[in-house]
Amino acid sequence: MEDFNFYSPTFFAFGKDRENEAGSLVRRFGGSKVLIHYGGGSVIRSGLLDRVKASLDKENIPYAELGGVKPNPRSGLVYEGIELCRKEGIDFILAVGGGSTIDSSKAIAAGVVYDGDFWDFYSGKLIEKALPIGTILTIAAAGSEGSPDSVITKEEGMFKRGATGDAIRPRFSILNPALTQTLPPYQTACGITDIMAHLYERYLTNTTEVEVTDRLIEGLLLTMIHEGPRVIEDPDNYEARANIMWAGMMAHNNSCGVGRSQDWTSHDIEHELSALYDCAHGAGLAVTLPANFTYVMKHNVMRFAQAAVRVWGCQMDFANPENTARAGIEALRRFFKSIGMPGNFEELGAKEEDIPKMVESLCRGNGRGGSISGFTTLTEEDCANIYRLMI
Amino acid sequence: MEDFNFYSPTFFAFGKDRENEAGSLVRRFGGSKVLIHYGGGSVIRSGLLDRVKASLDKENIPYAELGGVKPNPRSGLVYEGIELCRKEGIDFILAVGGGSTIDSSKAIAAGVVYDGDFWDFYSGKLIEKALPIGTILTIAAAGSEGSPDSVITKEEGMFKRGATGDAIRPRFSILNPALTQTLPPYQTACGITDIMAHLYERYLTNTTEVEVTDRLIEGLLLTMIHEGPRVIEDPDNYEARANIMWAGMMAHNNSCGVGRSQDWTSHDIEHELSALYDCAHGAGLAVTLPANFTYVMKHNVMRFAQAAVRVWGCQMDFANPENTARAGIEALRRFFKSIGMPGNFEELGAKEEDIPKMVESLCRGNGRGGSISGFTTLTEEDCANIYRLMI
Repeated sequence: MEDFNFYSPTFFAFGKDRENEAGSLVRRFGGSKVLIHYGGGSVIRSGLLDRVKASLDKENIPYAELGGVKPNPRSGLVYEGIELCRKEGIDFILAVGGGSTIDSSKAIAAGVVYDGDFWDFYSGKLIEKALPIGTILTIAAAGSEGSPDSVITKEEGMFKRGATGDAIRPRFSILNPALTQTLPPYQTACGITDIMAHLYERYLTNTTEVEVTDRLIEGLLLTMIHEGPRVIEDPDNYEARANIMWAGMMAHNNSCGVGRSQDWTSHDIEHELSALYDCAHGAGLAVTLPANFTYVMKHNVMRFAQAAVRVWGCQMDFANPENTARAGIEALRRFFKSIGMPGNFEELGAKEEDIPKMVESLCRGNGRGGSISGFTTLTEEDCANIYRLMI
Repeated sequence: MEDFNFYSPTFFAFGKDRENEAGSLVRRFGGSKVLIHYGGGSVIRSGLLDRVKASLDKENIPYAELGGVKPNPRSGLVYEGIELCRKEGIDFILAVGGGSTIDSSKAIAAGVVYDGDFWDFYSGKLIEKALPIGTILTIAAAGSEGSPDSVITKEEGMFKRGATGDAIRPRFSILNPALTQTLPPYQTACGITDIMAHLYERYLTNTTEVEVTDRLIEGLLLTMIHEGPRVIEDPDNYEARANIMWAGMMAHNNSCGVGRSQDWTSHDIEHELSALYDCAHGAGLAVTLPANFTYVMKHNVMRFAQAAVRVWGCQMDFANPENTARAGIEALRRFFKSIGMPGNFEELGAKEEDIPKMVESLCRGNGRGGSISGFTTLTEEDCANIYRLMI
C-alpha cells in the first residue's frame, strides 16, 4: 500500500425530507448569503427548489439564483457564476441537482476566490481555496457530493477536463433517495454505470497488497449488481435507491481508493465522446469500459480474473485465467445492456470517422503530450484501437 | 435503510514516518498548547515519544505530559488530566498510543470544557463540545482514531461504559503501520479480534434492505481473515499491517454501519469481563462473540447463514440453513483460536462463580434497568446463560 492522506469532512444528512434542513445546514457551516445553483426544469417542477428556498427563508438567509446548468457543464456558466457571486457578495454555494450542477458549483466556488482564470485548475493546478459548498443531490451517479473532484467542459475547443482539491469537498450533502425516484430509467442506468466506473477505475491498480481497498470496491460493485436491476425494474423502490445512493458516495469519496494507483483512462476516453456528441457520461462509459478493459486486460490478467470471480461469480479457469478475465468483462458488458445502456458507437450515436479527431483531443488537447496513463500508458494508436473496439 | 447523519471530519495521515508531522498537524488544526497523553514504557522505549516532542518543538508548540494510561483506562487519570489541562491552559490533546490512550484523551477533552462530572457522558449524555484531539496510533484495534466513541472504566464500582459524540472525533490521526510492527503477537491478535467484533456488531441488525453496508462489512471481514494470519505469522509484514490498520479505521468510523440498527451486546457482555479480570478487551471478545452468537442465532438464522456463506465460504445448506449459520460461528471460533486467542473462561482467567456478579453489574449497574438490548433484548437470565456458554 502506498502512503496517503485522506480527508473527507463532509456532513451527510441522509433520508427522507432532509432537504428541508438546507437552511439550518447553511447556517451551521457558516453561510450568510447563498447562491442557489441548479440545472433546469425538473427541480422547479418537482417543487424541490421551492422547498429549498423556504428552508433558507426560514433561517433568514438571503440568496441569489443561477439556473441553466447542462449535462457536461460548460465553462461559460462558470464564468457567469463567478461574476454573480462577486457582485452579490455570496459566501456559500448551494448546489441543487446532480453531478453536473455540483461540479459547476465547485468550479464557481474555486473561481470566486482566485485571481486568475478558473480554467487553470482544470489544466492541472490544485484547488487550495474555495467558497464553501453544500449540495442537495438529485441523482446517484457522479459521487461529486462527497468527492474533491469536478469536471467541466471548456466551450472553446470543447475540452472536458477535471480539477481536484480537498477545498471543494462539500461542507454538507443532503442525500434523500426519494428525490431520485422520479428519474427516468435511462438516467438512473447512466448513474449506475458511472458509479461502477468509479469503482473499476480504482480497481485497476498497479499497487500490490491492497486487500482492504480491493474488498471494499468489490463489496460496492456487488451492491450495484444487486440493486441496479431492482431499481430499473421498480423506479419507486426507495430501499434500492437508498443503497445505490450511499454506494455512489462511497465509490467516489476515495475511502475505497486510498493508497493505490488508479486508472482514469476510461473516464478520459469517455470525456471525448460526451464532449463531442453531448451524450450522457454514463452512457459513454458503458461503451468505453468493456472496450478499454478488453484492450488492456493482458497488462494484468489476474486482476481481471479476480474481479470476474469475486464480483461476477465466474468460475476460475486455473488452466487459462485469461478465459476467466474475459468472462468477467463480458459479464460487465451484459450487465450494462440489461439495464438499458448502449453497447457500441451506433447505439451511442458516435461515428467511426470522428475517431482521429477524438484521439487528437484526448492525447494532444489542452497541453497533453501524446498519451494518457493509468493502468497502462495508452498512445494515440492504442486509443484509436480502443475506440475501434466500440464500433 | 434508516435515516442517518454521517460526519467524519478526521484528517488521516497514513504511512511511514508520518508521526514526524505531528507538530505541523497540531498547528494546522489550531492547537497552541498541547497535552501529550500516553500509556507506559513502549512509546518511550521505542523513541516514538521523543520524535513526537521533537516535532512539536520544531513548530515551537509548548506541551505538558500525562502518561500512565492503562488498558481499560480509568476515570482517576481522566480527572487528573482534566485538572492538568485547566491549570496549564491546554487547548489541544495529542494521544500517543492505542485505543485506551485515545479514549482517555477523549474523556479529558470532553471533561475540560464541561462544568459537571465528565462521567455524565458515560451515563448517557451526548458529548457536544470538547477540546480538539489528535492521535498517533500504535495498535490497530479499537478504531478510536476515527470514531466518535470512548470507553472508560469508573474505578468506583468498576463500571466500564461508553460515551459518544462527533465532538470527540479526532481532528487528525496519524496511522503509521510500521509503529505496530513491534507489537507482541497476543496484542496483535487482540486488535484483530476487536476489529472483527466492531464489524460483527454492526452486521447483527434488525434493519432490512441494507445491502451496501452488509457488503462493506463483509469486505472488511474478508480482509481481516486474509491479513490476520499473515501478520501473526510475520509480525514485520508492513503490507499486512497496513491493510489491517485501514480496515480497523473503516470498521469503526461507521461508514459501514450507517442507516441500520446495530448490536453492541457483545461489547457490553465483554466489558464486564475486562472490568473484573482486567483482561485484554480483544481476548474477552474472542470468548464472548461465539457464545453470544450461538445463543441469539435463532433470532435470525438467515443473517448468520449469510455471514457464513459470504464471509467464511461455507456451503449453504438450503434444507437446513441453521447448519450453515452454525458452521459460520464455528469458523469464527476456530479463527480466533488460530491466531492465539482464548476460547473459554479458563483460558481467559475468568471464573464461573463470578457470573452472578457480572450479570448484576451488566444488567443493573450504573442505572440500567435489568436487561441489555441490540440484536435482541437479553435479560439477566439470558446474560447468565451466555456467560455459561463460555465455560
